[in-house]
Amino acid sequence: MNISIQSAIETRTSVNNFQPDRPLDDDAIATLVDLATKAPSAYNLQNWRFIAVRSEDAKARLKSAAFGQRKVGDASVAFIICGTLAAHGHLRTALKPSVEANIMDQRTVDAWVAQVTESHQDDPALQRDEAVRSASLAAMTLMLAAQGMGLGSCAMGGFDGAQVAREFGLATTELPVMIVAVGHPAVSNWPQKPRKPLPEVLAIV
Amino acid sequence: MNISIQSAIETRTSVNNFQPDRPLDDDAIATLVDLATKAPSAYNLQNWRFIAVRSEDAKARLKSAAFGQRKVGDASVAFIICGTLAAHGHLRTALKPSVEANIMDQRTVDAWVAQVTESHQDDPALQRDEAVRSASLAAMTLMLAAQGMGLGSCAMGGFDGAQVAREFGLATTELPVMIVAVGHPAVSNWPQKPRKPLPEVLAIV
Repeated sequence: MNISIQSAIETRTSVNNFQPDRPLDDDAIATLVDLATKAPSAYNLQNWRFIAVRSEDAKARLKSAAFGQRKVGDASVAFIICGTLAAHGHLRTALKPSVEANIMDQRTVDAWVAQVTESHQDDPALQRDEAVRSASLAAMTLMLAAQGMGLGSCAMGGFDGAQVAREFGLATTELPVMIVAVGHPAVSNWPQKPRKPLPEVLAIV
Repeated sequence: MNISIQSAIETRTSVNNFQPDRPLDDDAIATLVDLATKAPSAYNLQNWRFIAVRSEDAKARLKSAAFGQRKVGDASVAFIICGTLAAHGHLRTALKPSVEANIMDQRTVDAWVAQVTESHQDDPALQRDEAVRSASLAAMTLMLAAQGMGLGSCAMGGFDGAQVAREFGLATTELPVMIVAVGHPAVSNWPQKPRKPLPEVLAIV
């Protein structure tokens, strides 16, 4: 984990070819997810859940839901990263450790719960945006953490969400936002693809 | 930029109080956005744009659209990070540098353009998810890059998107997904808030 943040960002590529049969142990998986949850989320909602798909059987089911993409099977672990809808209902619980640690007082928590409930409860589009946003922030953190551990990763959006939900028993409030495959890159992979020139994507005002 | 990726992730907090009157120069802004664009996006769509709000006038307009939140004015720069809808129409251009660099061949690009056009063109919900996803991946990368540069950041979802679009002349295909305030943290800020216990958010299957 000693490579610099700049180096992790600059050297990360989307790995399509992984060395098969290189499982990750529970500790490595826990480290990756623990770091992923350090991502921010609105109100500290932590509206996410991670399913680490590692067994052959589970990988086969996920691969089928991901249109047969080989990397799901070859990667050490394929993480299903879910965003949670209707997360406002769980904010009080999510913030309890912050109250117990004397970081937040109960009055602030009560105010946040009232505010998020008012803005989210009747707005399913906002709930969905929030779920995609939080899960994506966590996914990016996980990919950079993997890079720091000498592993490669690939963010995947190509899968049948309904099939993933069915196969892995997701709650109706859980939206599978991304699959992130993590493992040991094989020798042959694309280098990082060039980006648009900066002036096309940046304005300073 | 020498702190490790693990340290950047673990030490990042959401900064609410910034030291005012500490502008960032063009080079620092360019470095942050250059690193942010190293984030992955589906098909390498790069469906994002960054507006670095630095001048007093622009900050005042953004602050008004962000319900008066003080950090917009106090931060060195507040980045409006937009995701792009209907990005499939721009994929060929986005991948041209990859063809010119001999990383991708034209046949693969043609196949990707056909595939993304078929899946995206009649699916506005997918376009929106994709915009939120890509912008969020870039936002997280930018926040960790800022951490590596000794700066603090705060991801903000609380703003009036229509007002931001109007004030900053966004195209109808540009969705303001997040504001990321970046600057020098003041002395008084919350520490990182504790997260849910890992077993509540992680399953290994």
